[in-house]
Amino acid sequence: MPVSEYRYRRRVQFADTDLAGVVHFSWIARYMEEAEHALWREAGLSIVPRDSIIAFPRVAVAIEFKAPLLFEEEFEVHVRLTGLSRRSLTYAHTVSRGDTVIATGTMTAACVQKVPAPMRAVDIPQQILERLAVHSASAGG
Amino acid sequence: MPVSEYRYRRRVQFADTDLAGVVHFSWIARYMEEAEHALWREAGLSIVPRDSIIAFPRVAVAIEFKAPLLFEEEFEVHVRLTGLSRRSLTYAHTVSRGDTVIATGTMTAACVQKVPAPMRAVDIPQQILERLAVHSASAGG
Amino acid sequence: MPVSEYRYRRRVQFADTDLAGVVHFSWIARYMEEAEHALWREAGLSIVPRDSIIAFPRVAVAIEFKAPLLFEEEFEVHVRLTGLSRRSLTYAHTVSRGDTVIATGTMTAACVQKVPAPMRAVDIPQQILERLAVHSASAGG
Amino acid sequence: MPVSEYRYRRRVQFADTDLAGVVHFSWIARYMEEAEHALWREAGLSIVPRDSIIAFPRVAVAIEFKAPLLFEEEFEVHVRLTGLSRRSLTYAHTVSRGDTVIATGTMTAACVQKVPAPMRAVDIPQQILERLAVHSASAGG
Repeated sequence: MPVSEYRYRRRVQFADTDLAGVVHFSWIARYMEEAEHALWREAGLSIVPRDSIIAFPRVAVAIEFKAPLLFEEEFEVHVRLTGLSRRSLTYAHTVSRGDTVIATGTMTAACVQKVPAPMRAVDIPQQILERLAVHSASAGG
Repeated sequence: MPVSEYRYRRRVQFADTDLAGVVHFSWIARYMEEAEHALWREAGLSIVPRDSIIAFPRVAVAIEFKAPLLFEEEFEVHVRLTGLSRRSLTYAHTVSRGDTVIATGTMTAACVQKVPAPMRAVDIPQQILERLAVHSASAGG
Repeated sequence: MPVSEYRYRRRVQFADTDLAGVVHFSWIARYMEEAEHALWREAGLSIVPRDSIIAFPRVAVAIEFKAPLLFEEEFEVHVRLTGLSRRSLTYAHTVSRGDTVIATGTMTAACVQKVPAPMRAVDIPQQILERLAVHSASAGG
Repeated sequence: MPVSEYRYRRRVQFADTDLAGVVHFSWIARYMEEAEHALWREAGLSIVPRDSIIAFPRVAVAIEFKAPLLFEEEFEVHVRLTGLSRRSLTYAHTVSRGDTVIATGTMTAACVQKVPAPMRAVDIPQQILERLAVHSASAGG
Protein backbone atom coordinates (compact mmCIF):
# COMPACT_ATOMS: atom_id res chain seq x y z
CA MET A 1 0.00 0.00 0.00
CA PRO A 2 1.36 3.43 -0.91
CA VAL A 3 2.75 5.43 2.00
CA SER A 4 1.51 8.98 2.59
CA GLU A 5 2.81 9.81 6.08
CA TYR A 6 5.29 8.69 8.70
CA ARG A 7 5.91 9.36 12.37
CA TYR A 8 9.67 9.51 12.91
CA ARG A 9 11.04 9.37 16.45
CA ARG A 10 14.39 10.79 17.48
CA ARG A 11 16.34 11.96 20.50
CA VAL A 12 18.23 15.28 20.59
CA GLN A 13 21.99 14.72 20.53
CA PHE A 14 24.58 16.99 22.15
CA ALA A 15 26.04 18.20 18.85
CA ASP A 16 22.55 19.33 17.73
CA THR A 17 22.52 22.07 20.37
CA ASP A 18 24.08 25.54 20.35
CA LEU A 19 25.26 27.99 22.98
CA ALA A 20 21.69 29.14 23.59
CA GLY A 21 21.22 25.73 25.20
CA VAL A 22 18.66 24.50 22.69
CA VAL A 23 18.60 22.68 19.35
CA HIS A 24 20.04 24.91 16.60
CA PHE A 25 17.34 25.86 14.08
CA SER A 26 19.27 24.24 11.19
CA TRP A 27 18.86 20.91 12.96
CA ILE A 28 15.07 21.20 12.81
CA ALA A 29 15.46 21.32 9.02
CA ARG A 30 17.67 18.23 9.19
CA TYR A 31 15.15 16.40 11.38
CA MET A 32 12.49 17.15 8.75
CA GLU A 33 14.69 15.63 6.06
CA GLU A 34 15.48 12.59 8.22
CA ALA A 35 11.72 12.02 8.60
CA GLU A 36 11.20 12.27 4.84
CA HIS A 37 13.86 9.62 4.23
CA ALA A 38 12.26 7.40 6.88
CA LEU A 39 8.93 7.77 5.05
CA TRP A 40 10.66 6.59 1.86
CA ARG A 41 12.14 3.59 3.65
CA GLU A 42 8.67 2.80 5.04
CA ALA A 43 7.55 2.72 1.39
CA GLY A 44 10.38 0.32 0.53
CA LEU A 45 12.36 3.07 -1.19
CA SER A 46 15.60 4.95 -0.75
CA ILE A 47 15.85 8.64 -1.57
CA VAL A 48 19.32 7.75 -2.91
CA PRO A 49 18.81 4.62 -4.99
CA ARG A 50 22.16 2.87 -5.43
CA ASP A 51 23.62 3.27 -8.93
CA SER A 52 20.88 5.69 -9.84
CA ILE A 53 21.40 8.84 -11.88
CA ILE A 54 18.42 10.63 -10.35
CA ALA A 55 18.37 12.68 -7.17
CA PHE A 56 15.85 14.70 -5.17
CA PRO A 57 17.37 18.08 -4.23
CA ARG A 58 15.33 20.41 -2.06
CA VAL A 59 13.91 23.39 -3.95
CA ALA A 60 12.10 25.09 -1.05
CA VAL A 61 11.84 24.84 2.70
CA ALA A 62 9.86 26.94 5.18
CA ILE A 63 9.77 26.46 8.94
CA GLU A 64 8.09 28.19 11.87
CA PHE A 65 9.72 27.62 15.24
CA LYS A 66 7.22 27.47 18.12
CA ALA A 67 9.11 26.21 21.16
CA PRO A 68 12.67 25.24 22.09
CA LEU A 69 13.82 21.62 22.05
CA LEU A 70 16.45 20.53 24.58
CA PHE A 71 19.31 18.05 24.87
CA GLU A 72 18.26 14.42 25.27
CA GLU A 73 14.58 15.18 24.76
CA GLU A 74 12.69 12.66 22.65
CA PHE A 75 10.50 14.07 19.93
CA GLU A 76 8.50 13.09 16.87
CA VAL A 77 8.47 14.42 13.34
CA HIS A 78 5.14 13.73 11.66
CA VAL A 79 5.69 14.05 7.92
CA ARG A 80 2.85 13.93 5.37
CA LEU A 81 3.17 13.93 1.62
CA THR A 82 0.92 16.86 0.66
CA GLY A 83 1.75 17.21 -3.02
CA LEU A 84 2.99 14.87 -5.71
CA SER A 85 3.37 16.15 -9.23
CA ARG A 86 5.17 14.64 -12.20
CA ARG A 87 8.48 16.18 -11.17
CA SER A 88 8.25 17.24 -7.55
CA LEU A 89 7.07 16.26 -4.07
CA THR A 90 5.86 18.47 -1.24
CA TYR A 91 5.75 17.51 2.42
CA ALA A 92 4.27 19.07 5.55
CA HIS A 93 6.05 18.42 8.85
CA THR A 94 5.10 18.81 12.49
CA VAL A 95 7.88 18.45 15.03
CA SER A 96 6.52 17.81 18.52
CA ARG A 97 7.55 16.71 21.98
CA GLY A 98 4.50 15.13 23.59
CA ASP A 99 1.70 17.70 23.23
CA THR A 100 4.07 20.58 22.59
CA VAL A 101 4.55 21.64 18.99
CA ILE A 102 8.21 22.53 18.46
CA ALA A 103 7.99 23.52 14.80
CA THR A 104 5.91 23.20 11.67
CA GLY A 105 7.26 23.26 8.17
CA THR A 106 6.99 22.41 4.53
CA MET A 107 9.59 21.12 2.12
CA THR A 108 9.56 20.65 -1.64
CA ALA A 109 11.97 18.38 -3.51
CA ALA A 110 12.40 18.04 -7.27
CA CYS A 111 13.40 15.01 -9.29
CA VAL A 112 16.57 15.66 -11.29
CA GLN A 113 18.90 13.68 -13.48
CA LYS A 114 22.52 14.31 -12.52
CA VAL A 115 24.40 12.90 -15.50
CA PRO A 116 25.23 13.79 -18.14
CA ALA A 117 25.81 17.30 -16.69
CA PRO A 118 24.22 19.75 -16.34
CA MET A 119 21.63 18.48 -13.85
CA ARG A 120 18.07 18.79 -15.22
CA ALA A 121 14.50 18.15 -14.09
CA VAL A 122 13.06 14.77 -15.08
CA ASP A 123 9.90 12.80 -14.34
CA ILE A 124 9.74 10.85 -11.09
CA PRO A 125 10.14 7.15 -12.01
CA GLN A 126 6.90 5.15 -12.08
CA GLN A 127 8.15 2.58 -9.53
CA ILE A 128 8.61 5.41 -7.02
CA LEU A 129 5.24 7.04 -7.75
CA GLU A 130 3.49 3.71 -7.15
CA ARG A 131 4.72 3.50 -3.59
CA LEU A 132 3.85 7.02 -2.47
CA ALA A 133 0.46 8.70 -2.09
CA VAL A 134 -0.74 12.15 -1.16
CA HIS A 135 -2.00 12.25 2.40
CA SER A 136 -5.81 12.34 2.43
CA ALA A 137 -6.04 15.18 4.95
CA SER A 138 -3.92 17.20 2.54
CA ALA A 139 -5.64 16.20 -0.67
CA GLY A 140 -9.07 17.25 0.52
CA GLY A 141 -7.85 20.73 1.40
CA MET B 1 25.49 55.23 11.06
CA PRO B 2 22.94 52.46 11.47
CA VAL B 3 23.60 49.34 9.42
CA SER B 4 20.84 47.94 7.17
CA GLU B 5 22.66 45.44 4.96
CA TYR B 6 25.86 43.46 4.68
CA ARG B 7 27.67 41.47 2.00
CA TYR B 8 29.22 38.43 3.67
CA ARG B 9 31.81 36.42 1.74
CA ARG B 10 32.56 32.78 2.40
CA ARG B 11 34.10 29.70 0.82
CA VAL B 12 32.37 26.30 0.80
CA GLN B 13 34.13 23.86 3.12
CA PHE B 14 34.29 20.09 2.63
CA ALA B 15 32.07 19.29 5.63
CA ASP B 16 29.33 21.54 4.19
CA THR B 17 28.77 19.12 1.30
CA ASP B 18 26.75 15.92 1.12
CA LEU B 19 26.84 12.77 -0.98
CA ALA B 20 25.02 14.54 -3.81
CA GLY B 21 28.29 16.43 -4.26
CA VAL B 22 26.85 19.84 -3.39
CA VAL B 23 26.31 21.98 -0.30
CA HIS B 24 23.64 20.44 1.93
CA PHE B 25 20.53 22.63 2.08
CA SER B 26 20.81 23.06 5.86
CA TRP B 27 24.13 24.81 5.30
CA ILE B 28 22.45 27.48 3.19
CA ALA B 29 20.38 28.29 6.29
CA ARG B 30 23.57 28.45 8.35
CA TYR B 31 25.26 30.72 5.81
CA MET B 32 22.24 33.06 6.10
CA GLU B 33 22.66 33.14 9.87
CA GLU B 34 26.42 33.72 9.58
CA ALA B 35 25.69 36.73 7.35
CA GLU B 36 23.20 38.11 9.87
CA HIS B 37 25.79 37.91 12.65
CA ALA B 38 28.35 39.60 10.40
CA LEU B 39 25.83 42.41 9.81
CA TRP B 40 25.55 42.81 13.60
CA ARG B 41 29.33 42.94 13.96
CA GLU B 42 29.42 45.56 11.20
CA ALA B 43 27.02 47.56 13.41
CA GLY B 44 29.34 47.16 16.39
CA LEU B 45 27.05 44.58 17.98
CA SER B 46 27.09 40.92 18.89
CA ILE B 47 23.98 38.77 18.52
CA VAL B 48 25.15 37.13 21.78
CA PRO B 49 26.14 40.01 24.05
CA ARG B 50 28.41 38.70 26.83
CA ASP B 51 26.68 38.44 30.20
CA SER B 52 23.38 39.31 28.61
CA ILE B 53 20.07 37.67 29.51
CA ILE B 54 18.52 38.33 26.13
CA ALA B 55 18.77 36.20 23.01
CA PHE B 56 17.47 36.26 19.44
CA PRO B 57 16.04 32.84 18.54
CA ARG B 58 14.78 32.30 15.02
CA VAL B 59 10.98 32.15 14.76
CA ALA B 60 10.70 31.60 11.00
CA VAL B 61 12.89 30.81 8.04
CA ALA B 62 12.00 30.25 4.39
CA ILE B 63 14.44 29.46 1.60
CA GLU B 64 14.18 28.79 -2.12
CA PHE B 65 17.09 26.90 -3.65
CA LYS B 66 17.90 27.96 -7.22
CA ALA B 67 21.24 26.38 -8.11
CA PRO B 68 23.77 24.03 -6.52
CA LEU B 69 26.87 25.34 -4.73
CA LEU B 70 30.05 23.26 -4.87
CA PHE B 71 33.10 22.54 -2.73
CA GLU B 72 35.65 25.35 -2.52
CA GLU B 73 33.46 27.79 -4.43
CA GLU B 74 33.45 31.34 -3.10
CA PHE B 75 30.08 32.96 -2.66
CA GLU B 76 28.36 35.95 -1.14
CA VAL B 77 25.38 36.28 1.16
CA HIS B 78 23.72 39.66 0.79
CA VAL B 79 21.59 40.21 3.89
CA ARG B 80 19.21 43.15 4.27
CA LEU B 81 17.21 44.07 7.35
CA THR B 82 13.68 44.27 5.93
CA GLY B 83 11.67 44.59 9.11
CA LEU B 84 12.34 45.88 12.60
CA SER B 85 9.56 45.91 15.13
CA ARG B 86 9.67 46.37 18.88
CA ARG B 87 10.31 42.67 19.48
CA SER B 88 11.49 41.12 16.22
CA LEU B 89 13.73 41.53 13.20
CA THR B 90 13.24 40.23 9.67
CA TYR B 91 15.96 39.77 7.09
CA ALA B 92 16.02 38.99 3.38
CA HIS B 93 19.00 37.05 2.02
CA THR B 94 20.40 36.41 -1.42
CA VAL B 95 23.12 33.79 -1.71
CA SER B 96 25.05 34.12 -4.96
CA ARG B 97 28.19 32.95 -6.71
CA GLY B 98 29.15 35.65 -9.17
CA ASP B 99 26.04 36.32 -11.25
CA THR B 100 24.39 33.03 -10.31
CA VAL B 101 21.75 33.15 -7.59
CA ILE B 102 22.13 30.06 -5.40
CA ALA B 103 19.27 30.75 -3.01
CA THR B 104 16.99 33.45 -1.68
CA GLY B 105 15.47 33.47 1.76
CA THR B 106 13.95 35.30 4.66
CA MET B 107 14.50 34.87 8.36
CA THR B 108 12.73 36.32 11.39
CA ALA B 109 14.25 36.45 14.86
CA ALA B 110 12.55 37.46 18.11
CA CYS B 111 14.03 39.15 21.15
CA VAL B 112 13.58 37.02 24.26
CA GLN B 113 14.68 37.11 27.86
CA LYS B 114 16.06 33.75 28.95
CA VAL B 115 16.14 34.11 32.73
CA PRO B 116 14.30 33.76 34.97
CA ALA B 117 12.72 30.80 33.11
CA PRO B 118 10.51 30.42 31.18
CA MET B 119 11.90 32.34 28.21
CA ARG B 120 9.61 35.20 27.17
CA ALA B 121 9.40 37.92 24.50
CA VAL B 122 10.83 41.30 25.49
CA ASP B 123 11.56 44.59 23.75
CA ILE B 124 14.77 44.89 21.76
CA PRO B 125 17.14 47.08 23.82
CA GLN B 126 17.42 50.70 22.65
CA GLN B 127 21.20 50.53 22.18
CA ILE B 128 20.68 47.74 19.65
CA LEU B 129 17.84 49.49 17.82
CA GLU B 130 20.00 52.60 17.40
CA ARG B 131 22.61 50.71 15.41
CA LEU B 132 20.31 48.93 12.98
CA ALA B 133 18.03 50.32 10.28
CA VAL B 134 15.54 48.88 7.83
CA HIS B 135 17.03 48.66 4.34
CA SER B 136 15.55 51.41 2.17
CA ALA B 137 14.78 49.12 -0.78
CA SER B 138 12.72 47.09 1.68
CA ALA B 139 11.00 49.93 3.49
CA GLY B 140 9.34 51.23 0.35
CA GLY B 141 7.44 47.98 -0.07
CA MET C 1 24.49 -2.35 38.89
CA PRO C 2 27.17 -0.01 37.57
CA VAL C 3 27.38 0.31 33.79
CA SER C 4 30.72 -0.25 32.04
CA GLU C 5 29.77 -0.60 28.37
CA TYR C 6 26.97 0.06 25.93
CA ARG C 7 26.07 -0.96 22.39
CA TYR C 8 24.54 2.04 20.66
CA ARG C 9 22.71 1.53 17.37
CA ARG C 10 22.27 4.24 14.76
CA ARG C 11 21.50 4.75 11.09
CA VAL C 12 23.55 7.05 8.86
CA GLN C 13 21.60 10.18 7.93
CA PHE C 14 21.97 12.12 4.70
CA ALA C 15 23.52 15.19 6.36
CA ASP C 16 26.25 12.98 7.90
CA THR C 17 27.73 12.33 4.46
CA ASP C 18 30.10 14.43 2.34
CA LEU C 19 30.87 14.76 -1.35
CA ALA C 20 33.08 11.66 -1.21
CA GLY C 21 29.80 9.77 -0.79
CA VAL C 22 30.61 8.47 2.69
CA VAL C 23 30.15 9.59 6.30
CA HIS C 24 32.41 12.59 7.05
CA PHE C 25 35.11 11.67 9.56
CA SER C 26 33.91 14.30 12.05
CA TRP C 27 30.65 12.38 12.29
CA ILE C 28 32.45 9.26 13.52
CA ALA C 29 33.64 11.40 16.45
CA ARG C 30 30.05 12.54 17.04
CA TYR C 31 28.76 8.96 16.91
CA MET C 32 31.33 8.07 19.58
CA GLU C 33 30.03 10.88 21.78
CA GLU C 34 26.41 9.87 21.17
CA ALA C 35 27.29 6.36 22.35
CA GLU C 36 28.96 7.72 25.50
CA HIS C 37 25.83 9.70 26.36
CA ALA C 38 23.68 6.61 25.75
CA LEU C 39 25.94 4.69 28.18
CA TRP C 40 25.28 7.41 30.78
CA ARG C 41 21.52 7.18 30.20
CA GLU C 42 21.77 3.37 30.59
CA ALA C 43 23.35 4.11 33.98
CA GLY C 44 20.45 6.40 34.90
CA LEU C 45 22.57 9.49 34.38
CA SER C 46 22.75 12.48 32.06
CA ILE C 47 26.07 13.90 30.93
CA VAL C 48 24.37 17.30 31.31
CA PRO C 49 22.54 17.13 34.63
CA ARG C 50 19.86 19.84 34.72
CA ASP C 51 20.76 22.79 36.94
CA SER C 52 24.23 21.41 37.46
CA ILE C 53 27.41 23.49 37.49
CA ILE C 54 29.62 20.63 36.38
CA ALA C 55 30.36 19.53 32.82
CA PHE C 56 32.45 16.91 31.05
CA PRO C 57 34.43 18.51 28.22
CA ARG C 58 36.54 16.27 26.00
CA VAL C 59 40.29 16.59 26.63
CA ALA C 60 41.50 14.06 24.07
CA VAL C 61 40.16 12.03 21.18
CA ALA C 62 41.94 9.65 18.81
CA ILE C 63 40.33 7.71 15.97
CA GLU C 64 41.53 5.29 13.31
CA PHE C 65 39.28 4.96 10.28
CA LYS C 66 39.22 1.46 8.79
CA ALA C 67 36.37 1.38 6.28
CA PRO C 68 33.83 3.80 4.80
CA LEU C 69 30.28 4.01 6.14
CA LEU C 70 27.47 4.82 3.71
CA PHE C 71 24.11 6.60 3.70
CA GLU C 72 21.27 4.69 5.40
CA GLU C 73 23.56 1.96 6.68
CA GLU C 74 22.85 0.77 10.20
CA PHE C 75 25.82 0.47 12.50
CA GLU C 76 26.77 -0.02 16.11
CA VAL C 77 29.07 1.89 18.42
CA HIS C 78 30.38 -0.33 21.20
CA VAL C 79 31.65 1.96 23.94
CA ARG C 80 33.53 0.67 27.02
CA LEU C 81 34.64 2.71 30.01
CA THR C 82 38.35 1.89 30.15
CA GLY C 83 39.52 4.37 32.75
CA LEU C 84 37.90 6.18 35.64
CA SER C 85 40.00 8.44 37.80
CA ARG C 86 38.96 11.04 40.34
CA ARG C 87 38.63 13.73 37.71
CA SER C 88 38.44 12.06 34.31
CA LEU C 89 36.93 9.21 32.31
CA THR C 90 38.38 7.35 29.35
CA TYR C 91 36.39 5.33 26.83
CA ALA C 92 37.30 2.95 24.01
CA HIS C 93 34.96 2.78 21.02
CA THR C 94 34.49 0.36 18.16
CA VAL C 95 32.22 1.48 15.32
CA SER C 96 31.08 -1.44 13.21
CA ARG C 97 28.58 -2.44 10.54
CA GLY C 98 27.93 -6.12 10.97
CA ASP C 99 31.34 -7.80 10.96
CA THR C 100 33.09 -4.83 9.37
CA VAL C 101 34.98 -2.51 11.69
CA ILE C 102 34.47 1.07 10.49
CA ALA C 103 36.60 2.81 13.12
CA THR C 104 38.18 2.40 16.52
CA GLY C 105 38.84 5.21 18.92
CA THR C 106 39.42 6.48 22.41
CA MET C 107 38.07 9.54 24.13
CA THR C 108 38.91 11.18 27.45
CA ALA C 109 36.62 13.61 29.26
CA ALA C 110 37.38 15.66 32.35
CA CYS C 111 35.04 16.80 35.11
CA VAL C 112 34.98 20.58 35.40
CA GLN C 113 33.06 23.18 37.35
CA LYS C 114 31.84 25.97 35.08
CA VAL C 115 30.85 28.65 37.57
CA PRO C 116 32.15 30.80 39.05
CA ALA C 117 34.46 31.40 36.08
CA PRO C 118 37.07 30.40 35.13
CA MET C 119 36.21 26.76 34.54
CA ARG C 120 38.37 24.41 36.65
CA ALA C 121 38.86 20.68 37.21
CA VAL C 122 36.86 19.17 40.07
CA ASP C 123 36.20 15.67 41.41
CA ILE C 124 33.51 13.61 39.72
CA PRO C 125 30.49 13.57 42.08
CA GLN C 126 30.09 10.38 44.12
CA GLN C 127 26.57 9.70 42.81
CA ILE C 128 27.99 9.53 39.30
CA LEU C 129 30.95 7.33 40.24
CA GLU C 130 28.59 4.83 41.86
CA ARG C 131 26.76 4.18 38.63
CA LEU C 132 29.76 3.68 36.36
CA ALA C 133 32.44 0.97 36.37
CA VAL C 134 35.57 0.26 34.40
CA HIS C 135 34.98 -2.47 31.83
CA SER C 136 36.60 -5.72 33.00
CA ALA C 137 38.28 -6.47 29.67
CA SER C 138 39.95 -3.09 30.03
CA ALA C 139 40.86 -3.22 33.70
CA GLY C 140 42.92 -6.38 33.40
CA GLY C 141 45.02 -5.34 30.48
CA MET D 1 58.01 26.54 -4.35
CA PRO D 2 56.51 23.56 -2.55
CA VAL D 3 54.23 24.38 0.38
CA SER D 4 54.89 22.77 3.76
CA GLU D 5 52.75 24.80 6.16
CA TYR D 6 49.85 27.23 6.26
CA ARG D 7 48.31 29.58 8.79
CA TYR D 8 44.54 29.48 8.34
CA ARG D 9 42.42 32.13 10.01
CA ARG D 10 38.78 31.66 10.92
CA ARG D 11 36.06 33.05 13.15
CA VAL D 12 33.83 30.82 15.32
CA GLN D 13 30.29 30.70 13.97
CA PHE D 14 27.16 30.24 16.08
CA ALA D 15 26.37 26.77 14.72
CA ASP D 16 29.87 25.58 15.76
CA THR D 17 28.97 25.93 19.44
CA ASP D 18 27.09 23.57 21.76
CA LEU D 19 25.05 23.93 24.92
CA ALA D 20 28.23 24.09 27.01
CA GLY D 21 28.67 27.53 25.43
CA VAL D 22 31.88 26.63 23.60
CA VAL D 23 32.91 25.20 20.23
CA HIS D 24 31.93 21.52 20.00
CA PHE D 25 35.03 19.29 19.87
CA SER D 26 34.02 17.84 16.48
CA TRP D 27 34.39 21.34 15.03
CA ILE D 28 38.05 21.48 16.06
CA ALA D 29 38.55 18.43 13.82
CA ARG D 30 36.71 20.24 11.02
CA TYR D 31 38.84 23.37 11.47
CA MET D 32 41.94 21.17 11.14
CA GLU D 33 40.61 19.79 7.86
CA GLU D 34 39.70 23.27 6.60
CA ALA D 35 43.30 24.35 7.27
CA GLU D 36 44.65 21.33 5.36
CA HIS D 37 42.52 22.22 2.34
CA ALA D 38 43.70 25.83 2.55
CA LEU D 39 47.30 24.56 2.54
CA TRP D 40 46.51 22.65 -0.66
CA ARG D 41 44.99 25.74 -2.25
CA GLU D 42 48.11 27.70 -1.25
CA ALA D 43 50.05 25.06 -3.20
CA GLY D 44 47.81 25.57 -6.22
CA LEU D 45 45.98 22.30 -5.58
CA SER D 46 42.53 21.10 -4.63
CA ILE D 47 42.05 18.13 -2.32
CA VAL D 48 39.12 17.25 -4.60
CA PRO D 49 40.44 17.68 -8.13
CA ARG D 50 37.49 18.04 -10.54
CA ASP D 51 36.86 14.92 -12.63
CA SER D 52 39.45 13.01 -10.64
CA ILE D 53 39.07 9.42 -9.53
CA ILE D 54 41.39 9.80 -6.55
CA ALA D 55 40.48 11.00 -3.08
CA PHE D 56 42.20 11.56 0.26
CA PRO D 57 40.14 10.00 3.07
CA ARG D 58 41.35 10.45 6.62
CA VAL D 59 42.82 7.27 8.14
CA ALA D 60 43.70 8.67 11.56
CA VAL D 61 43.09 11.75 13.66
CA ALA D 62 44.19 12.58 17.21
CA ILE D 63 43.44 15.79 19.08
CA GLU D 64 44.18 17.16 22.54
CA PHE D 65 41.91 19.95 23.71
CA LYS D 66 43.66 22.54 25.88
CA ALA D 67 41.27 25.47 26.25
CA PRO D 68 37.72 26.38 25.22
CA LEU D 69 37.03 28.47 22.12
CA LEU D 70 34.03 30.82 22.16
CA PHE D 71 31.47 32.26 19.74
CA GLU D 72 32.81 34.97 17.42
CA GLU D 73 36.39 34.52 18.56
CA GLU D 74 39.00 34.68 15.82
CA PHE D 75 41.60 31.96 15.81
CA GLU D 76 44.35 30.42 13.72
CA VAL D 77 45.05 26.88 12.66
CA HIS D 78 48.74 26.38 11.92
CA VAL D 79 49.04 23.23 9.83
CA ARG D 80 52.40 21.67 8.92
CA LEU D 81 52.96 18.71 6.62
CA THR D 82 55.01 16.41 8.83
CA GLY D 83 55.04 13.26 6.74
CA LEU D 84 54.72 12.49 3.06
CA SER D 85 55.02 8.93 1.88
CA ARG D 86 54.15 7.37 -1.46
CA ARG D 87 50.55 6.81 -0.44
CA SER D 88 49.80 9.01 2.59
CA LEU D 89 50.24 12.43 4.15
CA THR D 90 50.50 13.37 7.81
CA TYR D 91 49.86 16.81 9.25
CA ALA D 92 50.39 18.42 12.64
CA HIS D 93 47.98 21.18 13.69
CA THR D 94 48.01 23.84 16.36
CA VAL D 95 44.77 25.73 16.93
CA SER D 96 45.34 28.97 18.80
CA ARG D 97 43.66 32.24 19.75
CA GLY D 98 46.40 34.78 20.20
CA ASP D 99 48.89 33.25 22.63
CA THR D 100 46.42 30.67 23.92
CA VAL D 101 46.69 27.17 22.49
CA ILE D 102 43.18 25.79 22.02
CA ALA D 103 44.12 22.36 20.69
CA THR D 104 46.93 20.39 19.07
CA GLY D 105 46.43 17.49 16.74
CA THR D 106 47.65 15.24 13.99
CA MET D 107 45.83 13.89 10.97
CA THR D 108 46.79 11.28 8.39
CA ALA D 109 45.15 10.97 4.98
CA ALA D 110 45.64 8.24 2.40
CA CYS D 111 45.48 8.46 -1.36
CA VAL D 112 42.83 6.16 -2.78
CA GLN D 113 41.28 5.44 -6.15
CA LYS D 114 37.51 5.38 -5.94
CA VAL D 115 36.55 3.75 -9.23
CA PRO D 116 36.25 1.06 -10.31
CA ALA D 117 34.96 -0.11 -6.90
CA PRO D 118 36.12 -1.15 -4.41
CA MET D 119 38.19 1.84 -3.30
CA ARG D 120 41.92 0.99 -3.04
CA ALA D 121 45.19 2.67 -2.03
CA VAL D 122 47.18 4.18 -4.89
CA ASP D 123 50.29 6.34 -5.23
CA ILE D 124 49.90 10.09 -4.81
CA PRO D 125 50.16 11.63 -8.30
CA GLN D 126 53.53 13.21 -9.11
CA GLN D 127 52.03 16.63 -9.89
CA ILE D 128 50.67 16.76 -6.33
CA LEU D 129 53.92 15.57 -4.73
CA GLU D 130 55.84 18.31 -6.53
CA ARG D 131 53.86 21.05 -4.89
CA LEU D 132 54.04 19.83 -1.29
CA ALA D 133 57.02 19.44 1.02
CA VAL D 134 57.58 18.13 4.51
CA HIS D 135 57.94 20.98 7.00
CA SER D 136 61.59 21.37 8.00
CA ALA D 137 60.90 21.59 11.74
CA SER D 138 59.17 18.22 11.34
CA ALA D 139 61.70 16.53 9.09
CA GLY D 140 64.54 16.95 11.55
CA GLY D 141 62.71 14.92 14.16
